[in-house]
Amino acid sequence: MEQRLDFVTLGVPDLGAVRDFYLGGLGWEPVLEVPGEIIFLQVGHGLVLGLFGSADLDADVGAGQDSGRSAPFTLSHNVEGEDEVREVMEQAREAGATILKEAQPAAFGGFHGYFADPAGFRWEVCFNPGWSVAPDGTVGIVPV
Amino acid sequence: MEQRLDFVTLGVPDLGAVRDFYLGGLGWEPVLEVPGEIIFLQVGHGLVLGLFGSADLDADVGAGQDSGRSAPFTLSHNVEGEDEVREVMEQAREAGATILKEAQPAAFGGFHGYFADPAGFRWEVCFNPGWSVAPDGTVGIVPV
Repeated sequence: MEQRLDFVTLGVPDLGAVRDFYLGGLGWEPVLEVPGEIIFLQVGHGLVLGLFGSADLDADVGAGQDSGRSAPFTLSHNVEGEDEVREVMEQAREAGATILKEAQPAAFGGFHGYFADPAGFRWEVCFNPGWSVAPDGTVGIVPV
Repeated sequence: MEQRLDFVTLGVPDLGAVRDFYLGGLGWEPVLEVPGEIIFLQVGHGLVLGLFGSADLDADVGAGQDSGRSAPFTLSHNVEGEDEVREVMEQAREAGATILKEAQPAAFGGFHGYFADPAGFRWEVCFNPGWSVAPDGTVGIVPV
C-alpha cells in the first residue's frame, strides 16, 4: 500500500447545509456534483474532498462497520484495478487492519473494499475507472 | 479561503498501536515524529496525515469544541502568516461556520484558529513557520 491519500469523504447529516457553506459561502467549485447525492471538491494536487450523506456513506461501507461508533468519514486509497484492490486489502489485513468490507464490486460501478486501522479509522481501497489525475494534479471524475 | 486541504489529523486513542500499523505493518515513513506525541506522514503532493493522541488533539482545539460529539479528526488549511489566519477565519465566519477557537498563538509555536462547518467537521486555519512544500510537492516540517 503506497503512502498515499486520494479522497477524504465526509458523511454529513444535511448535504444542502454543507453545499451552502462550501459552494455558496466559500465559493468552492465542484469537480462533480450529483444533486442530492454527493459533491466532490478538488482540494489539492490529485486530492478530493467528498461531501456525502452520512447514511449513504455508512451504507457504502456496509455491515462490517463499527456501527454508530465510527467517525463519520472515510479516507480513500485509489489503485489501478481489481487485483490491486485485493492485494492492498490483503496487505492491510496482514498489517493488522480489521476488514470491514471484503474487496467486491462497488455500487458506483468500480471495485472496492474497506478496512479499519487500529484506532478505528476507515480506509476505502478503491478502483474507480472514472477517476483520473493529470500530471499537473487535476482530478477528473466521471460517473461510471 | 482557497480550495485546499493540507493536513488530515487523526485523533487516536493509542499512538503506539497506529504507529505499529502504519510504520511497522505498511512500512510508511514519517516526515517528522515526536516520540509519544505525534507522527506526520506525507500522503500526497503537499499533503500530510497526522497521527496525534485524541486527548492532545481535543486540547489543541480547546474549549470551543463540541466536546465528545465531534469526530476525532481535523482538516487543516495552512496559510502564510498571522493576518491571513485572521482573514480566513473571518471569511469562514461570514460563510456560516461556527468558530471553535479564535485566531491566536498556537502551542506549537505558530498561529491558528479552528472553526466547524455546518456538519460539525473541524477545520484548523494555521500558520506554521516550520512547514513548507517544495515545488515537487515534498513537505518539510521542522519543530518551531
